[in-house]
Amino acid sequence: MTNRTHLDPEQIVRLEEGDVPRVVLLDQRRLPDEEVELECGTAAELAEAIRSLAVRGAPAIGVAAAYGLALAALRGDDLAEAERTLAASRPTAVNLFWALDRMREEPTPARARALHEEEVERCRRMAAHAAALFAPGSRALTHCNAGGLATGGYGSAVGALRTAWERGLLERVLVDETRPLLQGSRLTAWELEQAGIPHAVIADSAAASLMARGEIDLVVTGADRIAANGDTANKIGTYSLAVLARHHEIPLYVVAPTSTVDLGTPDGAGIPIEERDPTEITARFPARNPAFDVTPAALVAAIVTERGVHRPPYAESLVA
Amino acid sequence: MTNRTHLDPEQIVRLEEGDVPRVVLLDQRRLPDEEVELECGTAAELAEAIRSLAVRGAPAIGVAAAYGLALAALRGDDLAEAERTLAASRPTAVNLFWALDRMREEPTPARARALHEEEVERCRRMAAHAAALFAPGSRALTHCNAGGLATGGYGSAVGALRTAWERGLLERVLVDETRPLLQGSRLTAWELEQAGIPHAVIADSAAASLMARGEIDLVVTGADRIAANGDTANKIGTYSLAVLARHHEIPLYVVAPTSTVDLGTPDGAGIPIEERDPTEITARFPARNPAFDVTPAALVAAIVTERGVHRPPYAESLVA
Repeated sequence: MTNRTHLDPEQIVRLEEGDVPRVVLLDQRRLPDEEVELECGTAAELAEAIRSLAVRGAPAIGVAAAYGLALAALRGDDLAEAERTLAASRPTAVNLFWALDRMREEPTPARARALHEEEVERCRRMAAHAAALFAPGSRALTHCNAGGLATGGYGSAVGALRTAWERGLLERVLVDETRPLLQGSRLTAWELEQAGIPHAVIADSAAASLMARGEIDLVVTGADRIAANGDTANKIGTYSLAVLARHHEIPLYVVAPTSTVDLGTPDGAGIPIEERDPTEITARFPARNPAFDVTPAALVAAIVTERGVHRPPYAESLVA
Repeated sequence: MTNRTHLDPEQIVRLEEGDVPRVVLLDQRRLPDEEVELECGTAAELAEAIRSLAVRGAPAIGVAAAYGLALAALRGDDLAEAERTLAASRPTAVNLFWALDRMREEPTPARARALHEEEVERCRRMAAHAAALFAPGSRALTHCNAGGLATGGYGSAVGALRTAWERGLLERVLVDETRPLLQGSRLTAWELEQAGIPHAVIADSAAASLMARGEIDLVVTGADRIAANGDTANKIGTYSLAVLARHHEIPLYVVAPTSTVDLGTPDGAGIPIEERDPTEITARFPARNPAFDVTPAALVAAIVTERGVHRPPYAESLVA
């Protein structure tokens, strides 16, 4: 049972100052086979890294965008243009816009690093809140990667699994492979292996059958944007799990920092859903590739942020 | 809108007599990139072709096994041993055992060819019954491949789609890619392309979201084994679709020949579920790979065989 804290926050994303400033990322497209760093010399290069998923996960792209704006300031670039470029990289995650808002008044390396540290600290706090929802011997299912990679360190849903494991409450984790880009089998399995947490990857479509067999006690996921009423946009397939969990009377918990909550969007209908290139699914036949879906608040048992466990009605509990 | 009937039954599987008799298969593992034939000189080689999915689909492996027994007889091999070898190739599909039963008394090429022709004729009849369930403008979802490849010709669920298309009732088809082996994106999309039916492949986990958006009117699948009470074993993910369809008030229809109905198994609990090699999902991390799941009869809107449309309670309608 190894438990090395493999992913230091600055390994996931950092700003290097000096003569040629740059944002340096662990290239998540090449994990788990290779641990390769990608250097972005401009906000535009960083926006492309976000678009192509070299860095992904709502909180992590917020952190990366903050470093990107600080990079543009160090270079003396047009900050309004840098902000526009970064904001256009991906539409669904609200953390991106949240981080750019925070950086606008003081686009400095120190501000970006503080924002990064705060994000990791939020993860640790929400993980502690979420772990309290685990009964001893819990067998969890998670989807996509809401781990340290996705958040700049520690993780939201995976953070909850890590804390529950450290407290002796977690028996094992099933990991949806998460087609089409396999964030579950490539990234979450890699993080769980490094944390020494027993796990097995499954085809996304096997979750229902394993729920029916009584092998799953709870589902934990991250979020890309949470509307004011609790409707939650997350990786495509999360809504599917929410319906299946409800049918099997299993709770689905969303674990996400307050930077993911968008009180300006009243409900899920207002959340833009990114449609990605169909060739991510198949290059040979026509395909459709919605990258996210929206889970109605009614299917979410609790939303856990660093402030605590929010229960329905979310329109009240998220504001409070 | 091409409509060439590309897949002649004897292209999918046939018995060649002569000095060196053999069963010749279209190798489905190499589709859609290559159309390559695989020659099996013994029942054991054919059993390996079934195990490794060179030929797959419950009715098609029944047909292949029938040819395999005829091959063993032509060669003068031990027929009881040939039957045991073939029966051990895959556990879930009942058509395999059904076909071997039919061949036992008269293991001749003529008998095997008659069984093959009957199976294709059943497909055409059940497709006609199933097409009557389509309203004009229907937008269907299907899972895995219940096409000509899976049945030895024409197809069960895909046969229903073909007939509905010919009758002008079908607008388009969404095809689950069907992880881990991608029978949907490799085989069903290929068959639909050849039939000129508009289609798009989706990640399996996207089906729920597209149901919620109102883009799916009905779900049609095949079956590997149907118990006497209507519980239906089919490719992993079918049960997931059944729960999701019920939540969205969309009917799920199972289209399968009577050779798939196993009146000797009272319910789904008695159907063996094949667990395949985890490396089909990921070679790098632990994985679990159940190949089938069981959909409770209560989630199936109708079971369509060549005899007609069977409605609940299936314990009565399947026997009748």
